[in-house]
Amino acid sequence: MSKYTIGIDYGTLSARALLVDVSDGHELASSVFEYPHAVMTENLPDGTPLGPDWALQHPQDYLDALFTIVPAVVKNSGVQPADIIGLGIDFTSCTMLPVDRSARPLCFTEEFKNHPNAYVKLWKHHSTQQKADEIDRIAKERKEKWHANYGGKVSSEWTLPKIWELLDEDPALYDTMYEYVEAGDWLVWLLTGEDTRNSCSAGYKNFYNKQTGYPSHEFFAAIDPRLENVIEEKCFAPVIPIGSRAGMVKPDMAEKLDLMPGTAVSAANIDAHVCVAGAGVTRPGQMLAIVGTSTCHMTVSTVEKQVPGICGVVEDGLLPGFLGYEAGQSSVGDIFAWFCRNCVPKAYEEAAKERGMGIQQYLTELASALKPGESGLLALDWFNGNRSILVDFDLTGMLLGMTLQTKPEEIYRALIEATAYGTRMIVDNFRKYGVAVDEFFATGGISQKNAMAMQIYADVLNMPVRAVDAKQGAALGSAMFAATAAGKEAGGYDTVQDASAAMAPKNAHVYQPVAENARIYDELYQEYATLHDYFGRGINDVMKRLKKIRFE
Amino acid sequence: MSKYTIGIDYGTLSARALLVDVSDGHELASSVFEYPHAVMTENLPDGTPLGPDWALQHPQDYLDALFTIVPAVVKNSGVQPADIIGLGIDFTSCTMLPVDRSARPLCFTEEFKNHPNAYVKLWKHHSTQQKADEIDRIAKERKEKWHANYGGKVSSEWTLPKIWELLDEDPALYDTMYEYVEAGDWLVWLLTGEDTRNSCSAGYKNFYNKQTGYPSHEFFAAIDPRLENVIEEKCFAPVIPIGSRAGMVKPDMAEKLDLMPGTAVSAANIDAHVCVAGAGVTRPGQMLAIVGTSTCHMTVSTVEKQVPGICGVVEDGLLPGFLGYEAGQSSVGDIFAWFCRNCVPKAYEEAAKERGMGIQQYLTELASALKPGESGLLALDWFNGNRSILVDFDLTGMLLGMTLQTKPEEIYRALIEATAYGTRMIVDNFRKYGVAVDEFFATGGISQKNAMAMQIYADVLNMPVRAVDAKQGAALGSAMFAATAAGKEAGGYDTVQDASAAMAPKNAHVYQPVAENARIYDELYQEYATLHDYFGRGINDVMKRLKKIRFE
Repeated sequence: MSKYTIGIDYGTLSARALLVDVSDGHELASSVFEYPHAVMTENLPDGTPLGPDWALQHPQDYLDALFTIVPAVVKNSGVQPADIIGLGIDFTSCTMLPVDRSARPLCFTEEFKNHPNAYVKLWKHHSTQQKADEIDRIAKERKEKWHANYGGKVSSEWTLPKIWELLDEDPALYDTMYEYVEAGDWLVWLLTGEDTRNSCSAGYKNFYNKQTGYPSHEFFAAIDPRLENVIEEKCFAPVIPIGSRAGMVKPDMAEKLDLMPGTAVSAANIDAHVCVAGAGVTRPGQMLAIVGTSTCHMTVSTVEKQVPGICGVVEDGLLPGFLGYEAGQSSVGDIFAWFCRNCVPKAYEEAAKERGMGIQQYLTELASALKPGESGLLALDWFNGNRSILVDFDLTGMLLGMTLQTKPEEIYRALIEATAYGTRMIVDNFRKYGVAVDEFFATGGISQKNAMAMQIYADVLNMPVRAVDAKQGAALGSAMFAATAAGKEAGGYDTVQDASAAMAPKNAHVYQPVAENARIYDELYQEYATLHDYFGRGINDVMKRLKKIRFE
Repeated sequence: MSKYTIGIDYGTLSARALLVDVSDGHELASSVFEYPHAVMTENLPDGTPLGPDWALQHPQDYLDALFTIVPAVVKNSGVQPADIIGLGIDFTSCTMLPVDRSARPLCFTEEFKNHPNAYVKLWKHHSTQQKADEIDRIAKERKEKWHANYGGKVSSEWTLPKIWELLDEDPALYDTMYEYVEAGDWLVWLLTGEDTRNSCSAGYKNFYNKQTGYPSHEFFAAIDPRLENVIEEKCFAPVIPIGSRAGMVKPDMAEKLDLMPGTAVSAANIDAHVCVAGAGVTRPGQMLAIVGTSTCHMTVSTVEKQVPGICGVVEDGLLPGFLGYEAGQSSVGDIFAWFCRNCVPKAYEEAAKERGMGIQQYLTELASALKPGESGLLALDWFNGNRSILVDFDLTGMLLGMTLQTKPEEIYRALIEATAYGTRMIVDNFRKYGVAVDEFFATGGISQKNAMAMQIYADVLNMPVRAVDAKQGAALGSAMFAATAAGKEAGGYDTVQDASAAMAPKNAHVYQPVAENARIYDELYQEYATLHDYFGRGINDVMKRLKKIRFE
């Protein structure tokens, strides 16, 4: 008798539920719900204006999604609710909301419904940049040890800048709120009645360390005396490892969702991070890169190393029982899109159209005919700054080697190569600091749409690149965590690794490095590395000075 | 009673005659003749194939031009031949042909008419690159003092590589030829019967120095033992200063040209160099830049300094009585054209078309709205190598500072700025080595078509830029030299300076530097200079290594 789980992926604009067979991950049904309020950047629903760089969401959208797409996949799959053994949720992060003791969002109350800080602050709520800078300054000044685990850089997107902003702008709301929670944890709470914090969000977005806990009271007090006990007062729910069972679906919820009461619910997870298991990464040495507009690199290890320039290292952060490492490139597909929007001549657009191709497809066809090194071009991929390993957002792009014969497809290829060098820089940095990387998985749009790019990555990394077709990657990952939460006795699995091994997509395309290409790219990478250090490590800070002149 | 002169400018594809009033340079008539054979790069007229990088011309075209355009301007102007007091010729250079004792081109003979080396080797005949490299190697090895006067770099376009190739490939032709002559000097010889070499071509293209003569026999023998006496044997005509009278029109020629026998003919000149007087540059400290596809910078001084990285310093090279200095940027307008061909999106092309503008005009309009430094971009203008002051053709272009918001017009402006920084580098280098530059004249296409570019040059140089509208610049310059050859008694002038003062165009537009812009550009220029030295002076030879990889 087959068993099934449901994974729900809450994205930025919509939520998707996926019902799969636990034995092999086969999809039986999926359903998508777009949030009616989408992202609120100008006003609250009642017209209350928002400041610059604000990005809010309405929690009612999440509930409406839940009660629509779960019954839909149950119905459409034709599966009996009794055979659905688990439910798992992943969410964008850090996406936070203030709630009362009954888990009710404070924006649902009459008192706070016109308070911007009472709504969900979406991950890309960026009005908190100054707060993040100040946190960094204080952490550096105090030589906070945990700071190095985040590459020495706190993002404006994380929990502390968000709650500090809330406290500063709306102290009454701060006092009233029972807890400040991740949206994913909040949904798990509603479903199960269990108030938990998942180890992935707590670790990557709120400085939680399984061995040492949260940063000290002294640190929080140094940020703001009112925050001295912020963890005990507003972020106190116990941290549970991803892959564990948070609880079981309550009867009232079961009825609304067409599930059986008692169905296992896994700890929540982050949408990017759940893709690690979702893509089939199950052991140290394997790295997953989600190659899209930007790239997120994730790998696991049994050892905790302080690796400079990464986004974070968190125990139980990616797979339970392992240290999870995350690094990133702040622009990848965004660079190619910029190039196509701004730098491709009319003749190319028309030739592409005539051949019924997208412009990137056409450029890729032309660029595929080039050999490594043939263009004589070399680029730095810092069009949106450098996340890893320099952690410097004042850096900018560079292109070098142009002649009067240089063609658009040569520049296009050079930009793709630059992002591959940037990835190799991250891989080499992990290795240098003792974290092995010996197998490379790629998922995300570019891994599926651009075979030339993936071949270049394989040649530059001199490693096979396993491009995993994981269209539902996050939702499938959540279904794996759900199967683990259900456990082997219920027809699921004992470990996330077992679930991943059985349920991950089997249709990966493996790009093998070509020795001759790898040899040439090795030379070019050395050139990239020299310029990386020259422009990126303070030998010539021209990029920063140009930005300074620009903003004067 | 007004007096008139005729200036003839022999360009790459056509010759132009201009008849002007000697008192003020006013144009009475002009006439153009396009060469029927244009540039021969594939075959001789009889089908004999040419090698790669060959570029020949047919001397009959020059004669046909002469006998067409001179009578045309005489006739069209309505001027009496008796009032035409002089004729001057400028020519592309180094443009060489082998002739017999009667000045007959050897390609006119039955014996040699199918010998490629018997034709005119046009300035851009580039199959001689290896010969030029070998000459440089030997000159360096022998520490030839004259070599420094040419920035330590012999061009493949000059006389010695051309005649050496002729000797190597066609020794019988070499033995037969009476002399190897510049096309301009050859025409003067035909017109006057006087076999001369003008100081401008002899100086800039054949290592002639007024004080020390040609390089030594030992040097020529080191190149090739057969060349030991090449000057005495094949380049022996006396060098006469530009501005002097080479001779007078012979009666047979006068008849064909509708001129009076005895009309003064000036020493020949080079088309670029004759523009110095043509634009009104008459004293030390003034620099003329011909800003076109590439840029040629010329200035005069009373002192001979060895300035590294220039194209040449020649006594009587630009104005008689002065040391003439030449420097150059190997691509300027070519870079902007490359950008427009390869990097401007369809939407821009269509917007330009809709507004009835050329794409450069449209980009200029958009870029004009930007302030210095606003784009955050910085470029190196080495898309065709660097002529001055690095004398390195393996260098390539660079662009830095791009973000995902960077717009095409920002890149376009950054490229223009880069060429302005390149010009400032040349100006600063002259000053550093003791050659004053205190007034900047610009002529050539870009000086007339792009006011924004000229304002940027004024701001970057922090000097007024005097843009001289000299459409007929070279031909007008030749008319000035003709008036000087005629002399004051005949109604002309005693000196080229006097002729230039009277006859140069009066319609210059002067761009004044804006202090605030100059201040910002000063900062940006320092950044350019740092990268110039980093990439150009061997600190990081990445550009050369990329080229090497490319050609492997």
